[in-house]
Amino acid sequence: MKSLFNYILILFLFSSFSNLSAEGNMKLNLMPMPANVTVNEGKFLLTPSFTIAIQGKASDDFYSYATRVLRRISGRTGLFFPQDFLTKENNPISAPMIINCERLGKVELNEDESYTLTVTNSDIKLNATTDIGAMRGLETLVQLLQSDESGYYIPAVTIEDAPRFRWRGLMIDVSRHFMPLDVIKRNLDAMASVKMNVFHWHLSDDQGIRVEVKSLPKLNQLGSDGMYFTHEQIKEILAYAKARGIRVIPEFDIPGHSTAFLTAFPQLASAPGPYKIERNWGIFDPTFNPTIEATYKFFDTFFKEMCALFDDPYMHIGGDENNGKQWNNNKEIQTFMKKHNIPDNHGLQAYFNQRISKIITKYGKKMVGWDEIQHPNLPTNIVIQSWRGQKGLVDAATKGYQVILSNGYYIDLIQPTDFHYLNDPIPFNSPLTDEQKKFVLGGEVTSWAELVTPENIDSRIWPRTAAVAERFWSPQTVNDVEEMHRRLECVSFMLEDFGLLHIKNQPMMLRRLTNNNDTAPLKTLIDVIEPVKLYARHSQGVKYTSYSPYTRVVDAALPDVKIKRTLDKLIEKYIADKDEQSYNQLKDLFTTWQNNHSKFVELIKVSPILKEMEPLSNNLAIISKRGLEAIEYIKKGDNPLDNWFGDVQKDLDAAKKPYGQTEIMIIPQIEKLVNKVKV
Amino acid sequence: MKSLFNYILILFLFSSFSNLSAEGNMKLNLMPMPANVTVNEGKFLLTPSFTIAIQGKASDDFYSYATRVLRRISGRTGLFFPQDFLTKENNPISAPMIINCERLGKVELNEDESYTLTVTNSDIKLNATTDIGAMRGLETLVQLLQSDESGYYIPAVTIEDAPRFRWRGLMIDVSRHFMPLDVIKRNLDAMASVKMNVFHWHLSDDQGIRVEVKSLPKLNQLGSDGMYFTHEQIKEILAYAKARGIRVIPEFDIPGHSTAFLTAFPQLASAPGPYKIERNWGIFDPTFNPTIEATYKFFDTFFKEMCALFDDPYMHIGGDENNGKQWNNNKEIQTFMKKHNIPDNHGLQAYFNQRISKIITKYGKKMVGWDEIQHPNLPTNIVIQSWRGQKGLVDAATKGYQVILSNGYYIDLIQPTDFHYLNDPIPFNSPLTDEQKKFVLGGEVTSWAELVTPENIDSRIWPRTAAVAERFWSPQTVNDVEEMHRRLECVSFMLEDFGLLHIKNQPMMLRRLTNNNDTAPLKTLIDVIEPVKLYARHSQGVKYTSYSPYTRVVDAALPDVKIKRTLDKLIEKYIADKDEQSYNQLKDLFTTWQNNHSKFVELIKVSPILKEMEPLSNNLAIISKRGLEAIEYIKKGDNPLDNWFGDVQKDLDAAKKPYGQTEIMIIPQIEKLVNKVKV
Repeated sequence: MKSLFNYILILFLFSSFSNLSAEGNMKLNLMPMPANVTVNEGKFLLTPSFTIAIQGKASDDFYSYATRVLRRISGRTGLFFPQDFLTKENNPISAPMIINCERLGKVELNEDESYTLTVTNSDIKLNATTDIGAMRGLETLVQLLQSDESGYYIPAVTIEDAPRFRWRGLMIDVSRHFMPLDVIKRNLDAMASVKMNVFHWHLSDDQGIRVEVKSLPKLNQLGSDGMYFTHEQIKEILAYAKARGIRVIPEFDIPGHSTAFLTAFPQLASAPGPYKIERNWGIFDPTFNPTIEATYKFFDTFFKEMCALFDDPYMHIGGDENNGKQWNNNKEIQTFMKKHNIPDNHGLQAYFNQRISKIITKYGKKMVGWDEIQHPNLPTNIVIQSWRGQKGLVDAATKGYQVILSNGYYIDLIQPTDFHYLNDPIPFNSPLTDEQKKFVLGGEVTSWAELVTPENIDSRIWPRTAAVAERFWSPQTVNDVEEMHRRLECVSFMLEDFGLLHIKNQPMMLRRLTNNNDTAPLKTLIDVIEPVKLYARHSQGVKYTSYSPYTRVVDAALPDVKIKRTLDKLIEKYIADKDEQSYNQLKDLFTTWQNNHSKFVELIKVSPILKEMEPLSNNLAIISKRGLEAIEYIKKGDNPLDNWFGDVQKDLDAAKKPYGQTEIMIIPQIEKLVNKVKV
Repeated sequence: MKSLFNYILILFLFSSFSNLSAEGNMKLNLMPMPANVTVNEGKFLLTPSFTIAIQGKASDDFYSYATRVLRRISGRTGLFFPQDFLTKENNPISAPMIINCERLGKVELNEDESYTLTVTNSDIKLNATTDIGAMRGLETLVQLLQSDESGYYIPAVTIEDAPRFRWRGLMIDVSRHFMPLDVIKRNLDAMASVKMNVFHWHLSDDQGIRVEVKSLPKLNQLGSDGMYFTHEQIKEILAYAKARGIRVIPEFDIPGHSTAFLTAFPQLASAPGPYKIERNWGIFDPTFNPTIEATYKFFDTFFKEMCALFDDPYMHIGGDENNGKQWNNNKEIQTFMKKHNIPDNHGLQAYFNQRISKIITKYGKKMVGWDEIQHPNLPTNIVIQSWRGQKGLVDAATKGYQVILSNGYYIDLIQPTDFHYLNDPIPFNSPLTDEQKKFVLGGEVTSWAELVTPENIDSRIWPRTAAVAERFWSPQTVNDVEEMHRRLECVSFMLEDFGLLHIKNQPMMLRRLTNNNDTAPLKTLIDVIEPVKLYARHSQGVKYTSYSPYTRVVDAALPDVKIKRTLDKLIEKYIADKDEQSYNQLKDLFTTWQNNHSKFVELIKVSPILKEMEPLSNNLAIISKRGLEAIEYIKKGDNPLDNWFGDVQKDLDAAKKPYGQTEIMIIPQIEKLVNKVKV
């Protein structure tokens, strides 16, 4: 048996072994891939007598976690296990599976999350320093579950695992679109299942304050539209996260992104009010006035309550994208700056941050903020969250700031999984010294909420975030993109157990989009398109607000559609082999897309919401016809007519134009095919 | 134009009108069907400038309701409407749609829920006595939304509507399986959308107390497994329901069904403890001791808190299925009964109920209970919920008790929609006088929770409950089953807007059941089967508990599958017409089912949880082959061989046997076909 350091396919010595595929190897569906995996001979068969015993020290939260894992395995296998709730009192002395934790874990930065998992024919042993490490190990166990004709089993393995980074976060913006409690809960479950450990809760922005502030009730009366989490609900989430080994870092974005604050307290703004809760998207002027004492009195009250409500030592104060307009236009602020030798707005914001820092320090917290808060006048015990990129990260780490990377992990921008997956907080070519690298705590995926609702947020965050979770947890050498996609599909499927809607809500949205008619023509179309990337949705003639409908085709379309990769492989194979099978498969695909348009046009007649997609559907038919022509030419080895290449290029270029803020994703593939036609 | 009194298809005078089907009539997708509908010529086209103005008196809740309706219509149509939140301050003087309410409604029994809705080419007017009536009218408006090539519109109609019964309820049991807040919320939304107005919350049973009881903390510590609603959460639900014009009646089931209570307070039981929270299903012995004062002291404390927490004047005390065993075996109780001339256990329970009645009366509530609480010693201001049937209901109404019907509405028993739909609280042949009929307040659908989880509860309740909602609201003459099924399909589709999982969770469960392999063979199978009915699941060798897996095929199978009706019609047509098209369609169906078995067997190999369904899949193939033979014989007019009928009957009888607690639903249809084969 071989011990391997990462996720690659494990080769067996014994090819007669029953859980092997025909090729004699076994693919584990683990994500994040553990640091060390050895696959051994044998398997632990799951039977209805399967039980778990917990030894050593474990919290009530851990007993509940183990109970949920037992139920999840029972749910997948249909096996009726004899244990109901695992508790300290209801805990057998021995069992086929024994979990042993040395001590209770603390849900805080730097806690030990390592574990070892050993599965043999006869038993399962999960050992961990802390019960949080054991939680991570239980998720590995669930992912190991396999089956064959003999039933369900866990393959014999020895796994030694520990995370590469200690801060593995997901930020959810609940201000732009409010996300109810159940959205947060199911995302916390999903995070735990891929071993993420920080939930960053973006609780205020121009569009709303989403936390109850008892000491400043006006904030909720005027700045929340009635949509905010009560103290009880916040505590419920804190407990829910803690029970899954996840820290919760609240963010209150100041001094910019503060329209909602200033709607309630216009006297604290840097320009005269009144203000109204912002309904549009963008960067707005309203900014706290950092030169008046009333501002700090307000924040003393505010952070006193918030620092007591949230239990993690870190408090995020945002600090990004203050456009400075109100400061520039306010004479008193300008006078203040001159008087205090503050050279520019960045300096003024640093002054503000210093004052805020004192307040939150007084209430026992350390500060986290976006890139912009970094300034020589601020102490180095703060954490910088870099949204601007490696340069900012390296700069911060070099200066001795702890730093987390978010640039490259903006999951709402609909970029492909590969892009996020290969984005490393400390890339191989990092200029940082080993000592400086220690300042890089990890990273955070960010889910900004301008263009998502509770209905489609899951499909924007998952499954792509699972690949980033692997980047944060697994060894740096785990970076085979193809293998990642294979495992991601398995993990995506397993994520549904937590009620995640990332798969099942698309068919629902298609039913609505087709007015409950046959969704097939729309499904055929939507499988080859994606929403436009980055910020392009805001610059295509549609003006989005917080109350716009987010139920159009673009909102149901998924990021990183699979057909790109399938078609890539198929075309490569056809070009290489010119085989009949690839030819037929390509012909089938192109024919389906070509013929789809007339069906789609019929669908538009009963569902006008689809009308905006008609030109794109037509373009898909046109380029599919070109694809058919190309494979025909390649097959026959014919030279096309002189103007064919030019005409095709015109069609392909035309098809690149987005409609309904979506774009066809198979154009490069068809281009590749066309380029192989004999000139 | 004709004014019609019910739901039947409306015939137009002007067949050139564009929103007519080819037959010249228009089918409205309303459920419940309003009392009076007149369809007029014309339609109100929805455009991006559509706005709503609210006049007269309306609560903040109503403004929010109207805002949500605006968003739902925007979501369906993709139209970007200009209004964000409708509020008293943000309310235009005039608008294409004007809502006018005479007064604020109270969410209580007997409140006026009538409304009139008038749609013309140029405007929409919704008038109501109360804003609750206007909420009902808004739901009618959403259901009226239609589209054609010209866009989205509301057909010109005049609707005058009011409910037939004033108590139109849904009971959800959250004790057997705990149902989190979001399950309750989405069901409240669904209820409002079909104009139901009572949510009956079954909050305690042998398996758990699901409400926080601050004055008796032991109840939650020992009787809840940590799963209960806090006071804040209860208040959140009360507000959520009130905002939708729905009353909330809590039920605490006593003196039987009380194991969870007695786990915390064994000294109040009628036999010595200790007790443990019940994990099994059934009727159990633990019963409060009605002869000791400590019991009433306990309930005084308990109901004091509960009566203050819940705001409806009614309080449900359960009272069903006390098996009397503990009372029979307790000498002191027997002595007490003799001493007080209590002849039997029913009398003893009446004594208990009288004492409880005094307590809840003291705290301002009226009593509701199941059939068993009826007794000459109890006052007639209580409400009887009849689970035993018409006899009990008639008996209660005759004696001057207010009564609601639940017999025939046990939605968890997987009976067909027709059965529930045609079950009338006051059937045409009711022996009640007009005066007595007034005591029949309405009815309640009951969703008992032994065999459901948050994952599949929606598919057990919906859409069938929408048909019962129509029974409770619409005129008695609205009872065309075929037309109900047509409209139910539309309503079912629209219900997804509230996040209901009744449609989308089946594909998810199939993905899990097939271990993420191709679900098609399982889908083909599951579309022709249903879970066994009534209480049969408990008597087929599988012992279910609260922690069993509810993820098997039987749990994903839906009630009242459509194929029964489709096949019925197809066979009737084929028998009548012997036409080629019906023959081909039947042949396709039977061939698909026959060929499915070998695919299903392959699926079992990768997903052992399906193994239990193998014989049923095989039986489906066998009887489908018989179906193929039958249509062949009918087509050719041949006489089959002598033993064919006998052999077929053997196959059909064998196929009636359930497997995996599911049964094939197309056997009567094949029998009908076989009976038409020439002897």
